[in-house]
Amino acid sequence: MNRRHAALREMNARGVDTLLVSKITHVRYLTGFTGTAGVLLLGPEPVLVVDFRYAAQAAQQAEGITVDGGCAPPRLWATMLDRLRADQGRIGIDPRNLTAEQYLSLPEPGATVDCAGLVERLRAVKDADELRALRDAADLAETLVARLPEWLRPGRAENEIAGEIEYAQRHLGAERSAAPILVSSGERSTLPHGAASDRVMRAGEPVVVDLSPVVRGYRADITRTFHLGPAPAAFHRLHSAVREAHGRAMATVRAGVRASAVDAVARGVLAGHGLDGYFKHSLGHGIGLDQHEPPLLSPHDDTVLEAGMVVMIEPGVYVPGVGGTRIEDAVLVTETGCTPLTTSDPGLREL
Amino acid sequence: MNRRHAALREMNARGVDTLLVSKITHVRYLTGFTGTAGVLLLGPEPVLVVDFRYAAQAAQQAEGITVDGGCAPPRLWATMLDRLRADQGRIGIDPRNLTAEQYLSLPEPGATVDCAGLVERLRAVKDADELRALRDAADLAETLVARLPEWLRPGRAENEIAGEIEYAQRHLGAERSAAPILVSSGERSTLPHGAASDRVMRAGEPVVVDLSPVVRGYRADITRTFHLGPAPAAFHRLHSAVREAHGRAMATVRAGVRASAVDAVARGVLAGHGLDGYFKHSLGHGIGLDQHEPPLLSPHDDTVLEAGMVVMIEPGVYVPGVGGTRIEDAVLVTETGCTPLTTSDPGLREL
Repeated sequence: MNRRHAALREMNARGVDTLLVSKITHVRYLTGFTGTAGVLLLGPEPVLVVDFRYAAQAAQQAEGITVDGGCAPPRLWATMLDRLRADQGRIGIDPRNLTAEQYLSLPEPGATVDCAGLVERLRAVKDADELRALRDAADLAETLVARLPEWLRPGRAENEIAGEIEYAQRHLGAERSAAPILVSSGERSTLPHGAASDRVMRAGEPVVVDLSPVVRGYRADITRTFHLGPAPAAFHRLHSAVREAHGRAMATVRAGVRASAVDAVARGVLAGHGLDGYFKHSLGHGIGLDQHEPPLLSPHDDTVLEAGMVVMIEPGVYVPGVGGTRIEDAVLVTETGCTPLTTSDPGLREL
Repeated sequence: MNRRHAALREMNARGVDTLLVSKITHVRYLTGFTGTAGVLLLGPEPVLVVDFRYAAQAAQQAEGITVDGGCAPPRLWATMLDRLRADQGRIGIDPRNLTAEQYLSLPEPGATVDCAGLVERLRAVKDADELRALRDAADLAETLVARLPEWLRPGRAENEIAGEIEYAQRHLGAERSAAPILVSSGERSTLPHGAASDRVMRAGEPVVVDLSPVVRGYRADITRTFHLGPAPAAFHRLHSAVREAHGRAMATVRAGVRASAVDAVARGVLAGHGLDGYFKHSLGHGIGLDQHEPPLLSPHDDTVLEAGMVVMIEPGVYVPGVGGTRIEDAVLVTETGCTPLTTSDPGLREL
């Protein structure tokens, strides 16, 4: 399998014989196994250790891999350790994806090789199967966005809107929401991460809706801003500035450009409007089997973008007393620019 | 605050000056802060480190605690480390709730004191506020269970039922589902953890439904088994055995009894019916801010039950070719027995 070959090449370059893969989305990426618990010992003859609940499923999904699938769930780590102890080679770990307890339980913790980021870097560039799933998730998200105008009405609670979204996305084939559904209205729109609450929406208020349906493990992420009735000029100015930042950032994305440079363009646009002080988060992040993957489009990430990466572009401003607004779309990086996966009108929608 | 006093007593007994609390439900338990990111340095003068997004919220919620809330989200750990380095005392950690990277970043990892389980043991016995939230969550779960007969019909997909549950629980005031909603029909009922799928239910099949609405952070957990039309005698026998195990286990629970003894009673009942080979998971677990808390009602946990603990009783058997069935309820341990938090009829419901 190409993904495992690529990982083995990276391991060879670091003198690692066996890579201990415990992050479950890494395990899925490298084996096809979709269960919720399992540890992969990746080497020339990979072994996937799962508990008895997943033995049959793992054997079916993880082609070309030996499955050790007999233990009780609490014995998973100990079963993996038994296999690791029998192994003679150098062990690679990712210290961010092990607990300290797990780390200290390894045969010789100090002799392990730090392979942080090895699998993440492979996963940053998506293959054809992954792109199909990402596009399907994005299409599903757009279908939901198209229905928001019929759901958003004064007098309804934010939670009711989240309920409509959950109900509809199940019918459309989504597995679940990757993150809490954000529906933030009125002054709550100034929360960058405003999960739907029991607040009742009123006429004359902005509403920011942020969705993340999951299809075949892959996540979509889209944000649009609405206004219940005509928006005041001050709010239109906010949204126009965000829209300009969003458009200019998209126009900057292409293979060869640094992640930090894309963030800088958006931040610069907002600074030109005197709004950079209200844009405190990063411009975006990679997305795939996880909601937040490398690269980060932030001032601190100098990763050079590559064709095949899928990154979010999500500028937003949150001004107490005026309101908050955000626009968020996923884009596929290409050699010459980018292809947005979601393309619905990013303008302010006055309902 | 009583919870922090109790933790400080335990820390003193171990010679620990500062306890590094990074598990977010522990932070919530000890401070009242309900955000999704934060680290507590617990000592006589506790400090809660959060990023700027949560500065205002933490200051409002965490009474009697100094909030350090200015950093950007990726700088949270480094900000905590700066404070920890200025600290002169002995540091306690929980190696299960730190990553290896976090552990290795501590000033002197080898000099830390292993305090695994310290907060968990405090949390195992619930106080009055916690019991109110657990009861509210349980009541909400029962309201959902009462509506299942109108939703479960041949020709509908399992996912549609999960959608009905999600929609209704939002309206009833649940924050979310603690775990994926399990709706497993037909042969899928033999999966102990069968998340709702796109499978269409048919007449003459069993359906196991497992719900976990969250209210004010606290989780309910309930499972009932249904049959679409009359069930065959073989399935009735399975369910009767599970019901007997469930009832006998409940009758065994009281303060002073070991967790393993309760598991043994249920396992013994099923063995009497020749079904213990089909009951491969534990009988239950504690529940609260987390879905699975100590103690575990399993053959391997000899914790002595105490009044005020809330534990799940969830025997189930999963027989390929016949079907699966499970009954699950939360009970509050008392000095003389237990008080179930969910009390709806555990019998097989033929619809």
